[in-house]
Amino acid sequence: MRNVTIYPYSTLDELIDAVLQGNRRAIAKALSLVESQHPEDTEHAILLLEKLWPHTGQSWRIGISGVPGVGKSTFLNHFGLYLIEHFQKKVAVLAIDPSSVRSGGSILGDKTRMPELSRNESAFIRPSPTSGFLGGIAPATREAILICEAAGYNIIFIETVGIGQTETVVQSVVDFVLLFVLAHSGDELQGLKRGIMEIADAIVINKADGELLPLAQIAKKQLESALRLLYPSSEFWKPPVLLSSAIEMRGFEDIWTILHTFFTTEKTMKYIEEKRSKQNLSWFHQVIQQSLKNIFYSHPAIRKELPRLEHRIRAGTILPLRAARDVLRTFQKQKQ
Amino acid sequence: MRNVTIYPYSTLDELIDAVLQGNRRAIAKALSLVESQHPEDTEHAILLLEKLWPHTGQSWRIGISGVPGVGKSTFLNHFGLYLIEHFQKKVAVLAIDPSSVRSGGSILGDKTRMPELSRNESAFIRPSPTSGFLGGIAPATREAILICEAAGYNIIFIETVGIGQTETVVQSVVDFVLLFVLAHSGDELQGLKRGIMEIADAIVINKADGELLPLAQIAKKQLESALRLLYPSSEFWKPPVLLSSAIEMRGFEDIWTILHTFFTTEKTMKYIEEKRSKQNLSWFHQVIQQSLKNIFYSHPAIRKELPRLEHRIRAGTILPLRAARDVLRTFQKQKQ
Repeated sequence: MRNVTIYPYSTLDELIDAVLQGNRRAIAKALSLVESQHPEDTEHAILLLEKLWPHTGQSWRIGISGVPGVGKSTFLNHFGLYLIEHFQKKVAVLAIDPSSVRSGGSILGDKTRMPELSRNESAFIRPSPTSGFLGGIAPATREAILICEAAGYNIIFIETVGIGQTETVVQSVVDFVLLFVLAHSGDELQGLKRGIMEIADAIVINKADGELLPLAQIAKKQLESALRLLYPSSEFWKPPVLLSSAIEMRGFEDIWTILHTFFTTEKTMKYIEEKRSKQNLSWFHQVIQQSLKNIFYSHPAIRKELPRLEHRIRAGTILPLRAARDVLRTFQKQKQ
Repeated sequence: MRNVTIYPYSTLDELIDAVLQGNRRAIAKALSLVESQHPEDTEHAILLLEKLWPHTGQSWRIGISGVPGVGKSTFLNHFGLYLIEHFQKKVAVLAIDPSSVRSGGSILGDKTRMPELSRNESAFIRPSPTSGFLGGIAPATREAILICEAAGYNIIFIETVGIGQTETVVQSVVDFVLLFVLAHSGDELQGLKRGIMEIADAIVINKADGELLPLAQIAKKQLESALRLLYPSSEFWKPPVLLSSAIEMRGFEDIWTILHTFFTTEKTMKYIEEKRSKQNLSWFHQVIQQSLKNIFYSHPAIRKELPRLEHRIRAGTILPLRAARDVLRTFQKQKQ
C-alpha cells in the first residue's frame, strides 16, 4: 500500500488552509488521505479532520436513497444546478459504495452520470470508496462530509446505491433522507423494499412526466393515504410525497421548499442538532466497537478456529453459546 | 448475589432429565439457572443448555408484538387455551422485559394477566428478566425458548412489552411475528410506530367486537391496500391482516390457519430453517461482541475516562474519532 503524498502541499497545515479556502485539488487530496488505509496516513487524517472540525456542521446533509435505475443521478445533476443557479449554493455529491471491490461507473456516483453538474464551479462530485480508516460502518463518508463542509459546501448529498445496507448507513450520517421511487401503476410503486419507507423523510415519485405523469399523480394520493394510516399522528414530521421530473424540471420548487422548511424551522433545527449529537456519540462508540472486533477477528488463532465453529453452528451440532465461550477462551489465552 | 441451588435435584443430570420429562418445577429451576448472573451458575447453565440442545428446535416460535393496552395478554390467555383444547398443543408464554429494573405486573407477562391459561396443565407462563448471562441483547429469552422446547412445548409465544427496542429483539429469536394494533377510526390505527410494520409477519386488528367491529373492518381494508402499496410484490410472504376479539373468540381460526400454513408449507419451512441458522450464527457473534464490549466498558480506566469524553463529544469540542483513538489507547496501555 502506498502512503498518500500531500504534494503539492509541503505541510499538512498548508493542505488544511487550502481546503478551508475551498480549493478543489486540496479537497480531493484530503479525501484521499481519509480514505487511505496506510497507518501513517491515518494519523495525518485524524490531525486534518481535527483541524477542520471547528469549521464543520453548517451544511444540509441530505441522503438520496432508492434502487438503481430510479433516476437519482439525473435528478442530482439537474437539481444541483438548480440550487446553484437559484440559491447560490455550493453543492457536493458523495456516494456510499457498499461493495468491497469498486464497481463500474453505472453504480458508483461517477462524474459522467452528472455531466453538467460536474463541470460547474460550485459543485463537487466524488464517489466514496468502501474502506475508511478504522473500518467504520459508514466508511469515510462521515469524514468526506466534514471535509466538504470545511471547504464551504452548504448542501451535501449522500447518494446510496440502493442495495444492501446502504440505507441504514446513510441514515447514520445525514440529517434528512429523500427516498426515490417510481410509479409503476396506480396502486403499485417501483423501488420499494421492506424497511426502506422507515428511513424516508420525504418521498419523491420520480420520472413524473409524459405518459407516467397521471400514474404518478394517482400513486401520490395512494402513498399519502398509506403513510397516513401507517404512521402515528404524533410524529413531529410527516414525510411528504412529491413528484419530480428531471426532464421537465418538475417538482424542484416543491423539493426545495420542503428542504428549506426542514432545515430552517426552529423545531426541526432542534431535532437536527440532537440527531447530529447522537450521530457523533454513536460514531465514537462504533469506532471503539469496530476496533475491538478488528482486534478479535483478525487474531490468527481466532481466524483459524472461527470457520470450524461457524460450520458446526450452521450444522446445529454445537450450542452457539458454547462456541462463543470456546473462542473467547482461545482469545483470552493467546493474549496472556 | 446468590448461587441458584438446583434443590430438590441432586445433580445437574437429574434436573436435565426432569426438564426433558416436562416437569414444571424443573423448568422453573432451569430458567432460574440461565437467568442467574453468578459465574458458577453460568457454567452450569451452559452445560444444561448443551445437554438440552439436541432436544430443541421443534416448536413454533411466535413473537407477539404491540404497544401496552392493545390486548396481547388477554388474547394469549384465550388463544392459548384454544390451541390446547382444539389442537392438543403445549403452549408456553415468555416475555421480553427491556427494563433493567423489574416493573410491575401490568407490564410484565404476569400470570395474573392470563388467569385461565396459567392454571392449565398444558401451559407454562414465565416473564423473562432482563439480564441473562453474558448480557446478550435478547437476554435469557433464547435460553428460555430452548428449555421450553426441550420440555415438550410446541408453541412458544414471546410477548414483547411494545416499548423501546423489544421488537428488534423479538425478531432475532422468533420465526414469526404477530403484530397487534387497534382500529382507532376508519383511516387511523392505534399502536403503530415507525419501524414496527417492518417486522410483522401478520397484523391482528384486536378488540374487533361491539361498536369497534365496523371500524376494524374498514381499517383492515385500508391496511391491506397500504401494505399492497408499500411492500414489493416479490416478497415470498405477504403479511395478512386479521381481525380478532378475545371476548367473542373472533379470528382464532383465521390466526390458526395462517400460523399453520406458515409453519407447514415447504417454502416457508425452508425459510424458517434458514432464519434459525442465521439467528444461531448471529447469537454466536453477539455473545462474542457483547463480551468484548463488556471487557472494554467495564475496565476501570475506561469507566473513568468515558463520561468526560462523551461530554466533550456532546459539546462538539472533540472530534469523535479522536476521542475513540484516545480511549482505545488508554485501554491498550492498561492491558500491557
